[in-house]
Amino acid sequence: MANRSAAVLVAGSWGTALAAVLARNGCRVRLWTRNLAQAEEINVKRTNSRFLGDVTLPQGLLATASMEEALTGAEAVVFVAPSAAMREVARAAAPYLSSSALCLHATKGFETGTLKRMTTVLAEELGRPESELAVLSGPSHAEEVVRKLPTTVVVASRSLTVAQQAQDWFMNTNFRVYTNDDVTGVEVAGAIKNIIALGAGLSDGLGFGDNAKAALITRGLAEISRLGEAMGAGPLTFAGLAGVGDLIVTCTSKHSRNWRAGSLLATGLALGEVLERMGMVVEGVRTTQAANQLAQDYGVPMPITEQLYRVLFEGKSPQQAVEALMGRDRTHERREA
Amino acid sequence: MANRSAAVLVAGSWGTALAAVLARNGCRVRLWTRNLAQAEEINVKRTNSRFLGDVTLPQGLLATASMEEALTGAEAVVFVAPSAAMREVARAAAPYLSSSALCLHATKGFETGTLKRMTTVLAEELGRPESELAVLSGPSHAEEVVRKLPTTVVVASRSLTVAQQAQDWFMNTNFRVYTNDDVTGVEVAGAIKNIIALGAGLSDGLGFGDNAKAALITRGLAEISRLGEAMGAGPLTFAGLAGVGDLIVTCTSKHSRNWRAGSLLATGLALGEVLERMGMVVEGVRTTQAANQLAQDYGVPMPITEQLYRVLFEGKSPQQAVEALMGRDRTHERREA
Repeated sequence: MANRSAAVLVAGSWGTALAAVLARNGCRVRLWTRNLAQAEEINVKRTNSRFLGDVTLPQGLLATASMEEALTGAEAVVFVAPSAAMREVARAAAPYLSSSALCLHATKGFETGTLKRMTTVLAEELGRPESELAVLSGPSHAEEVVRKLPTTVVVASRSLTVAQQAQDWFMNTNFRVYTNDDVTGVEVAGAIKNIIALGAGLSDGLGFGDNAKAALITRGLAEISRLGEAMGAGPLTFAGLAGVGDLIVTCTSKHSRNWRAGSLLATGLALGEVLERMGMVVEGVRTTQAANQLAQDYGVPMPITEQLYRVLFEGKSPQQAVEALMGRDRTHERREA
Repeated sequence: MANRSAAVLVAGSWGTALAAVLARNGCRVRLWTRNLAQAEEINVKRTNSRFLGDVTLPQGLLATASMEEALTGAEAVVFVAPSAAMREVARAAAPYLSSSALCLHATKGFETGTLKRMTTVLAEELGRPESELAVLSGPSHAEEVVRKLPTTVVVASRSLTVAQQAQDWFMNTNFRVYTNDDVTGVEVAGAIKNIIALGAGLSDGLGFGDNAKAALITRGLAEISRLGEAMGAGPLTFAGLAGVGDLIVTCTSKHSRNWRAGSLLATGLALGEVLERMGMVVEGVRTTQAANQLAQDYGVPMPITEQLYRVLFEGKSPQQAVEALMGRDRTHERREA
């Protein structure tokens, strides 16, 4: 991929990390951000301090606030906008996008309101079939990727050719990329894992142990997988990097906002107080609402999600929620009553 | 299960914890141990200090060094001997076992030399078909179970009736039991997970991050699952409590001997020095040898196991092993070259 041109939209922590991977692979990379001061900091100081502290970014990476400049000549375009901004960013990008450019995204979450997957949003705004798009996901703290620590991710596309193209752009000896054809599975796994991270924080906050947390992650995976299958995903994707891999990274990191929100809820604070104390968006709260809705729409039992929903939005005590989960009827590991 | 009789062989940490669960469910439990002093301590002080510190054991649990006393009248018998002693313990138990008693085991590992699964060993020694036996496994530190912290496990048997009987004996509101029909999957998952714990310690010891550890667990799960499928297991079992659940507990606990051995290897010590410094059995070392053999016997690629084998037994440096893993050809997430 040396000397080829790529664009990454936008310059958050994960977008900047992916831009750094491409730049290290020898690409000319344009990193788009709306924020002029941030673009200047990246270009002059080679840092993105708001998101990545004082880590030095590689040469060959140039930030710009002009969408036209970012996309002109780009042979690969990576969308990493927050899920709430994806449609707007894709719409702004569409006029400048070469029809032959490889398009993929690395955003976790559903579109608010419509609950559409990000590939669906991109397909609609870029006027391309979903089969020409790809999604990149997996267990990957951005800071570790920028510091070249070993990392593995998965790139999924309904077209194996598209997935392999994306693999070629990103893969190197610190950043190992696996292909997969299950776009829906990878997107559902990435979107919903924050619920389980919230639950893990709650479990730790209640003073439960490693057994309870492992149970929560495993049974959480089982219900996410059930929902994914109802939406058209393959079950084995959830046992892979975008599923269990990402869950492990998310649920065992105490830096996670979702974990922290859960542990505060365990002290008996109401949701409003927790969010006020955190002072920032807690993705898992919005996701619990979305997943609870999807579970109803698809008629899939999701007991952990349901109990978390009741704690978050109906004032149920965390202790009662745990009792409800542990006191359910006896069941088979893969057949939920 | 109130007022029914059960026997547990032997009184290690996990056997004692399972005996405590049965006693709390109202059973009369006989816990067999060869060690008279240990039996007396359990009966008089109600502690098993060698394995469980000063935790108080429930009433209704009586230790004995007599196999006849332990098994007479027992309607359920739980074998929890170390894998190396299972055949001998089963042979000693066979003459006293009622033909109608439910028999299950909760031991992780293969028989040394033959590499047979524990259910196969039991079937041979008890003269019963494997379909009449069950295995209990899952993410479960014994100390947490004795302390009544929430725990989930799986009981697998080829006969759903047998699995449900075992579920009935153990299940309560702190100890949730799921049934499963995949005995081979549950046994392979439990036996091989220590390899990955060893690898996780190695990864942490080399200074790698959460991304690398999550990758190791997820890709380790993929290769264990591949071996299990070649041996007749179903792939989804590995995404369940006996697979990913137990892996999470094992790989994130710094109390694990396997993790510690791996982290010492990362400092450049040879295997002999590591084992000398640890002064006790490191299960993952023996398991790496067994799994490497099984991978060859079944013709299954297990790249992580193979690299660990080379570090442990062929003096390969951990750094080179990681480079070999990260530098492999590009591949698909579920189709290994």
